[in-house]
Amino acid sequence: MKTIALLTDFGLQDIYVGVMKAVMRSICPSAEFIDLTHAIPPQSVRGGAIALRNSYSYCPTETVFLVIVDPGVGSTRRPIAVRAGGYTFVAPDNGVLSYALAEIGGEQTAVILENPSYRRQAVSATFHGRDVFAPAAAYLARGDVALHQMGQAIHQLAELPAPTLQVDGKRISGEVTHIDHFGNIITSIGELRWVDEGRLVISIAEQMSARLVADHVTVRIGDETIYGILHAYHEIGRGGLMAQVDSNGYLEIAVNQGDAARRLNVTIGDPLELVLDDGD
Amino acid sequence: MKTIALLTDFGLQDIYVGVMKAVMRSICPSAEFIDLTHAIPPQSVRGGAIALRNSYSYCPTETVFLVIVDPGVGSTRRPIAVRAGGYTFVAPDNGVLSYALAEIGGEQTAVILENPSYRRQAVSATFHGRDVFAPAAAYLARGDVALHQMGQAIHQLAELPAPTLQVDGKRISGEVTHIDHFGNIITSIGELRWVDEGRLVISIAEQMSARLVADHVTVRIGDETIYGILHAYHEIGRGGLMAQVDSNGYLEIAVNQGDAARRLNVTIGDPLELVLDDGD
Amino acid sequence: MKTIALLTDFGLQDIYVGVMKAVMRSICPSAEFIDLTHAIPPQSVRGGAIALRNSYSYCPTETVFLVIVDPGVGSTRRPIAVRAGGYTFVAPDNGVLSYALAEIGGEQTAVILENPSYRRQAVSATFHGRDVFAPAAAYLARGDVALHQMGQAIHQLAELPAPTLQVDGKRISGEVTHIDHFGNIITSIGELRWVDEGRLVISIAEQMSARLVADHVTVRIGDETIYGILHAYHEIGRGGLMAQVDSNGYLEIAVNQGDAARRLNVTIGDPLELVLDDGD
Repeated sequence: MKTIALLTDFGLQDIYVGVMKAVMRSICPSAEFIDLTHAIPPQSVRGGAIALRNSYSYCPTETVFLVIVDPGVGSTRRPIAVRAGGYTFVAPDNGVLSYALAEIGGEQTAVILENPSYRRQAVSATFHGRDVFAPAAAYLARGDVALHQMGQAIHQLAELPAPTLQVDGKRISGEVTHIDHFGNIITSIGELRWVDEGRLVISIAEQMSARLVADHVTVRIGDETIYGILHAYHEIGRGGLMAQVDSNGYLEIAVNQGDAARRLNVTIGDPLELVLDDGD
Repeated sequence: MKTIALLTDFGLQDIYVGVMKAVMRSICPSAEFIDLTHAIPPQSVRGGAIALRNSYSYCPTETVFLVIVDPGVGSTRRPIAVRAGGYTFVAPDNGVLSYALAEIGGEQTAVILENPSYRRQAVSATFHGRDVFAPAAAYLARGDVALHQMGQAIHQLAELPAPTLQVDGKRISGEVTHIDHFGNIITSIGELRWVDEGRLVISIAEQMSARLVADHVTVRIGDETIYGILHAYHEIGRGGLMAQVDSNGYLEIAVNQGDAARRLNVTIGDPLELVLDDGD
Repeated sequence: MKTIALLTDFGLQDIYVGVMKAVMRSICPSAEFIDLTHAIPPQSVRGGAIALRNSYSYCPTETVFLVIVDPGVGSTRRPIAVRAGGYTFVAPDNGVLSYALAEIGGEQTAVILENPSYRRQAVSATFHGRDVFAPAAAYLARGDVALHQMGQAIHQLAELPAPTLQVDGKRISGEVTHIDHFGNIITSIGELRWVDEGRLVISIAEQMSARLVADHVTVRIGDETIYGILHAYHEIGRGGLMAQVDSNGYLEIAVNQGDAARRLNVTIGDPLELVLDDGD
């Protein structure tokens, strides 16, 4: 039994995801699928990169990831497979893997998916998911094809710029990176980690690492100002607006049992600020 | 092979469901998942309880249910596992299991999910699905951990009040409990069961049990009055409004090949009446 | 391990799909499910027939298909199982299988699903998916029940008329058959196949087969005229409107990284024309 985890912007209203699974099951009958999500906003490579970074590490070792957010389908962008941290990733080389690969680090091997033996015979210009990526994922999951048999090695992969995150004295500027099903607003401001009841640590890669008093910070987003960071939804009354740390360590703006994105009229890419008060 | 059935209000637009499956597959590689639904209205504990009651009994014996509608995540509400009727249920103790457990009856054993060995090491305040409930479900599905090892027994579980259902002479008052994908309106009025072509039996727990002539009843909902209960959609013309018995024995208001909820502008919680005519 | 592929108009917001899987897993514990799609427009038998025709052939041999778009549920339309091309199809006899069965051709055997041993004991009037079709699919997938044991043979199945496709001299009239998740507009005009960089072949069953110069054709749809057929999205600038060949060989109207259906305000059933210029 081998897990293939899927992450795409294909949605579930068409046959696209089902057809890819059919292709993979035909090649690798013991494949077991996990749908991480198919609701990445259409063509949002960065949305895909963030979702993958927040999910890959929960999958079993040796999982093969089929990651397709591919505005350049049919163009010259390369289809690739990457071996990193005990996982195998199959994707277009457009940066959609870059946040996960940067986090995994260590030795990584990548190849171009160019061997016609491991593609469908006729490759369409619009559905490389079916014709190139799914077959590659299935052959790699099956385990009898080595990575280097899929095509020539490449040593430089496309990288995405990180979401906005700037430190200016006591002011940290970030952006909204995701709105979830509940209307919770996820941001680029992290990594946040509670150290005791009232205190948390914030690390901003190579820019700062600070200890915050949870009460002594202010969040400005849309037209709202939120004082302090709470531990959990229930610490504010039903319908209350609050800031907290999301399950991946990022600053989250939420409404207890409500929809924060609708209330604040905020969307992906909108700016926000975390201001550390003088008290720190 | 062990079935884990999932029922949540997480939706499918985020990585939440996929990450829980990844966690479970990592702990119990032979787990097979069935998604009962992830579209319970956000934080609707009662919506979850109704959906579970209408679906659990179709699952194979020994299925483990992961049921998460959890407005109190991060608060003091207890995470629990319950053994009942050959099934195991993992959920927050907020009543989401109560309709199913009441129907199952018999001897039931419940524990609090508090043993840190069967949780993720770091438990977030916002995603107990990933950190508490999914690991518990996976360990219980794996079958090498006994229920009592998960935590101490509890004997009093949270219960939800039943949906509105009142009998006043020949008048039965109920409410809309669900609107389905087709716009069919499902109600709290049951249990209805056909005994022959033109006659059905209605039972209302401890309040009444009556034999109805299908032609001699009237349904009032929104601004509409519907005369009689039909057997199937096709008994009225395309676009016709009708009342029938849904696949779980509840009164359903539908439009043949149309959207009844939109036509009647009705939503969950709205009242309706079933009036038994003098003829009965 | 046996694959059961599901294709319905049930959506994913209710427990309907999950309950059918639970029923099938109970009967055939080794069943593995592939969801082809559950987002066929409600009651669109033709939408289901097209989606099945575009997806079935990617499934492993011996796949059992559970295909339910069933406006006549509860009426006299017959539930059937059909054996064709190494596959087994379970569906209502309303034509939803007809496009796929026509493409498969060869010898085909069909029976009516009438043996009560292979249905649920109580068959509801509204959910034959759960009570008739899912049990039949699961028994057939299990492999210990022969097709002829399910019920008597039938020799004439319901057929759907094909989508509009008319040739009038140099003018081919078709219609929109599907709008996908990205807003791409799929049409009834095919089969199109590239033979070299600038030339493609079009075949219209028994009406014409022609070689086209890709530059010398014009597409008229909504208020727009599109000149030429391109190979891939990237051949036009971001936001550009274009015609191309979709992954199943049909004419597709798309906007590179945009939503063509919204831009053209086009919906399923709308007409379009492909005009072959004099140059051919």
